[in-house]
Formats: sequence, C-alpha cells, structure tokens
Amino acid sequence: MKKPRIAVLLGDPAGVGPELIARLLSVPENRERADFLIIADSREWQEGMRIAGKQIDYTVAADPQSATFENNTPALVEFRLPDDASFTRAQATERGGRYSLEAFKVALALTKANETQAMLFAPVNKTSLHMAGMKTNDEMEWFAQQLDFTGQFCEFNVLDELWTSRVTSHIALKDVSSRLSVERVVGAVKLIDTGLKRAGIAKPRIAVCGLNPHNGDDGAFGREEIDIITPAVKEAQAQGFDVQGPYPADTIFVRARDQNVFDGVVTMYHDQGQIAMKLMGFWRGVTVHGGLPVPITTPAHGTAFDIQGQGKADVGAMQKAFDIGCAMGTLRL
Amino acid sequence: MKKPRIAVLLGDPAGVGPELIARLLSVPENRERADFLIIADSREWQEGMRIAGKQIDYTVAADPQSATFENNTPALVEFRLPDDASFTRAQATERGGRYSLEAFKVALALTKANETQAMLFAPVNKTSLHMAGMKTNDEMEWFAQQLDFTGQFCEFNVLDELWTSRVTSHIALKDVSSRLSVERVVGAVKLIDTGLKRAGIAKPRIAVCGLNPHNGDDGAFGREEIDIITPAVKEAQAQGFDVQGPYPADTIFVRARDQNVFDGVVTMYHDQGQIAMKLMGFWRGVTVHGGLPVPITTPAHGTAFDIQGQGKADVGAMQKAFDIGCAMGTLRL
Repeated sequence: MKKPRIAVLLGDPAGVGPELIARLLSVPENRERADFLIIADSREWQEGMRIAGKQIDYTVAADPQSATFENNTPALVEFRLPDDASFTRAQATERGGRYSLEAFKVALALTKANETQAMLFAPVNKTSLHMAGMKTNDEMEWFAQQLDFTGQFCEFNVLDELWTSRVTSHIALKDVSSRLSVERVVGAVKLIDTGLKRAGIAKPRIAVCGLNPHNGDDGAFGREEIDIITPAVKEAQAQGFDVQGPYPADTIFVRARDQNVFDGVVTMYHDQGQIAMKLMGFWRGVTVHGGLPVPITTPAHGTAFDIQGQGKADVGAMQKAFDIGCAMGTLRL
Repeated sequence: MKKPRIAVLLGDPAGVGPELIARLLSVPENRERADFLIIADSREWQEGMRIAGKQIDYTVAADPQSATFENNTPALVEFRLPDDASFTRAQATERGGRYSLEAFKVALALTKANETQAMLFAPVNKTSLHMAGMKTNDEMEWFAQQLDFTGQFCEFNVLDELWTSRVTSHIALKDVSSRLSVERVVGAVKLIDTGLKRAGIAKPRIAVCGLNPHNGDDGAFGREEIDIITPAVKEAQAQGFDVQGPYPADTIFVRARDQNVFDGVVTMYHDQGQIAMKLMGFWRGVTVHGGLPVPITTPAHGTAFDIQGQGKADVGAMQKAFDIGCAMGTLRL
C-alpha cells in the first residue's frame, strides 16, 4: 500500500513546535501511515527530541528527491538560516519568523509539485511573522500569494469530527456585513464541501450560521439573514449541496456538538466559530488551509511560549493535524 | 432569620415553565430559603404540578398583602386572563404572550414596592410576546419601560459562578461598533460590578473582551480596542474597579472557565458571550436583568416546546435562577 509523503516543519523554534513534532514522530503507527520529510535545522530537531524525551531514528538526505524512508524511518533535509545563529526561546523574534517563512517556501514548493502530498507545520507566531516582513494578515493569505493562487480560500477549523469555515476572517468586525454576499456564502459552502470530501467524507452535511443575534429576529435587528444568507443557502441547495440554515450562532454549536447531524458549519466571521471551537477543545483543534491547491494542516493553538521547553505541551492537536493531512495527502497519491 | 419573598411567574404556559416551577418549589430546602408568592392561573399551576409529578401544598391568597407562608408553604394569587380560555401548548400564541406580559406587570409592581424582594420567571417566548404587542426588542427593555427606568441596563448571563454582561444586545451586528464608547464600556463594567455585589460577591474581578479577531492585532483589523476599549478599561481601573483587558474573545472564555480568575466578563455584543455561555452549559445558564431597580432572574433557555409536557426539562437553570434571585432579594430585606 502506498503511503503519502508529508513535508513536516517545526514551526517557530521559539515555541512548542519542535517538541510536538518529536512526540508526533515518536509514535510508530504514525510512521507506518506516512513518510515524514522533515525540513529543519537539525539542531532544532534534536532539541525538540531532547525536550520531548524521545529519540527517533532518522536519515539525513542531501535533497528531498534523494530521501529514502526504509523501515518507516523519517528523513531530514537540512534547512538553516544563512546566519547560522541560535534561536531565542519563548518569545516573538524576527529570526523565528524568518525561519518559519523560509521553511514554508521549501515545503510549499515540494507539496505543490506533489513530491510531498501534504504539508504539516507546528505552530508559528504571528508577531514573529510580521516582524520578519510578512505583509498579509495571516499565513494563509501569504501561502496563497506564494502559490500564485487567486481563487476563494478560507481557513477551516476542525475539532474532532466537526469542521468550520468562515466567509470572512481577519477583518474588523464592523466590516463583516459589507463583505457578505450570496456568492461568497455559496463559495464558502463549496469550499468546506470540497475540503471535507478531500478529507474522505463522501457526503458532507453542512450548516450555515446567521450573522445577527437570534438570526436578526425576522429582520428586527439586521437583514443579512433575509437578504443574503437564506438566499445563499437556497442557491447552494439548488446546486446539490446538503446544506441547511441559517441557524442562530449561539445554539448551532451546541447542536453540532451534541448531535451527529453536521460535518461542517459555515460561519460568517472569525470569532463566531473560534469562540466555540476553542471552548470545545482548545488543545485538540486543527487548522486546515482550505481551497488552496495543496493540503496544509497545523494545530489551531499557538506557540505556547509559557510552557515551551517543558515537554508538557499537549500533542492532541498535532496528532489530529497529521491525521487530516495524511487523509488528504492519501487522496493525492 | 428573615427570608426574602419571591414573586414567581410560570412564564408562557405553552412551554416548560409551569412544570419547572413545580419542580423548583417541590424542593423543601428552596421553600426554607424563601417565601414563594406564585402569581398564576391556578389551573396552569396545577397542570405544571401534574406534568412534574409533584404535589405541593399551597395556600390561595385573595391578594399579595394577605398572603401567609406558614410552615414554608407557598401562596398563590389567582391571575387569569379576562377571557378565561385555555392555552394552546407547545407553540407560540398571542394569548401565551399576553398572559406572560400581564403577569409581569403584577410582579414588577410588587417587586418595585419591595413587597416581594425579587421576581423569578419561567421561560417566556419572544415570538408570543411580539404577537401580544410587545414593541421592544426584548423583555428587558419592556421591563425598563414599565418601571420608567431610563438609566443604563443590560442582561447578565450567568453560568455557574461566571457572569457576563454586554455593551450591546439585540442590535444588528453591523451596528455594534458605532454603539461602543468609553462611557458605555465603563458603564457595563459598573453594571456587572454592581450586579455581582448585589448577588453577594464582595470584590468582583472583571475581564473585558475586545471586539475584533485577535483584538484587532494592534490595529491591523479594527481599532476599537485601541481607541475605545483599552481607554475604557484604564478609566474603570482609575475609578477603582478590579478590571482587566481587553482580551481576545476566542480565548477569554477558555481561561475564565478553566481558571478561577474572573467573576465577570464584559462582552461587546450578544453572540460574543452567548456562543460561549450556551456551549458551557445550555441547561444551567441564568439571565439576570441587570441595572434595573429590582432583581429579576430567569433561566437562559427558552420555552423548549419540543419537550413541553413530558416532565423531562432540566430544572438546573431554574434552580440557579432562584439561587441568584434569592441572594439578591436577601440583600433588599
């Protein structure tokens, strides 16, 4: 049986990324399911193993093409910043951001070329990325630029078996309403449907959130449900998607969590989904960069500077990010 | 020891209200802690006891002033609609709404006069209230009108030991930003501080949410944190309140739930708090009508038409609503 090859990045070495990757790769079942191509400064990888208390056999490959994965052994391609200095731990730095971005470029190119079928990265730090010159609001927009991708894309947040997508993301809350349209809501339904199918869900069941409290109470406070979201749900249904809504945001997640009736929830803005998902399982949430031409997954939590180096960061989200990336990568073989 | 007298309403008879009140009053400890003055159509009260499977001794009083509560026995003051018809169950009706509103008037007057120290009501139905002619967006605004109260008020949502308040409530999401001001945020801090003190918390510890995703990321997407919320927190601190923030909305509730560091969270809009509170405990949440001159509490959940009459509605929130109303009422003695 063919296994997907996964490009693995340590994220920002200042955070818990290296130790999480070490713990992930220390699990024999994970190594059986995928070939891991680690793109990293080998000193950071070794430091990650030391913190995690895990020694993992790996080979060093001169380049990605010559890597072998005999006996499920991960391969490492050395990737260092030119200055070859050491990293500052547990804080945002320009150098940590630069390392993150430069490693992204290598892994994106490999994954775009299908030399690796998916890209999996440990947490990066937004402040560090901005210090290093990232101009976009988030790394997903940066990925799209790097990939010359101009279509609609959005971040999926995944908790256990529930996915969420957003019509808007890192924008001011006051601008959310003006960015909604039938086309964009339908687009978000299509995106999450495609994402779920790429992850192996044959017939995704999708719910769409309203925007206003109590869905605007029949237009009493806000008309977006009437003018945009309901027409979008009908349009998506007409196009054959299994989609329902709009549902008031303050009860749909209770229902989605307690009953197995939806695979995905389309939200209108960042915190509508993120308040819910982080409450339901902060250390289990996964981010899937959806709509982009290549599968990219990462834990939803951050670099967790407060517990860096202690070997106690929860590996749950990293494991789930691998599970999803592995499923998506397998379908690209 | 003096006990508070609580005005008790069955809410909309179409829903689970009567059965919940019967279950609440069936607990001897509750009757020891407060004198219950039930303002109800006695047929609905008896139907509630029948559904709940509880027979509770009660006296019938000709008027509130003549009620006695010997041996912790609740007293009922007959309250019927003039038409004396029966109620339709498990759906929104004009008559259910009218009954709710007319009973409110009686209980508000008693509680304003401190003849009852608090008002406790079982769930009403917003659609029924609007069918019955309520013009305001919610019952709290209607209470304020009835009480001729023109100061700042807001709904508190309480889950276990955590309270939340809102700077805005039932308004369109796109209008939230324009309704924020330093004065209104400071006002919401004062309101929740007062509410918590009225419920017996001597030194409330208060957190304030930001508005935008990731607090706007230093102004990258939204400036309300910089221009309004941070100055408001500083102003409230200068006035002596124990308040911190702003905190990003998608992580503050995780922190508030998992660490005992805050008694109250001030939110900027309805769903910011309600998504979190309903997820953390849908059947335990309580609404406290805060800032009004009289203590008013009710379960946060609705009339639950889908399970009306089955005697299986969870009494947890009704119990907590009583606990808080009882504490607030005791301080008015």
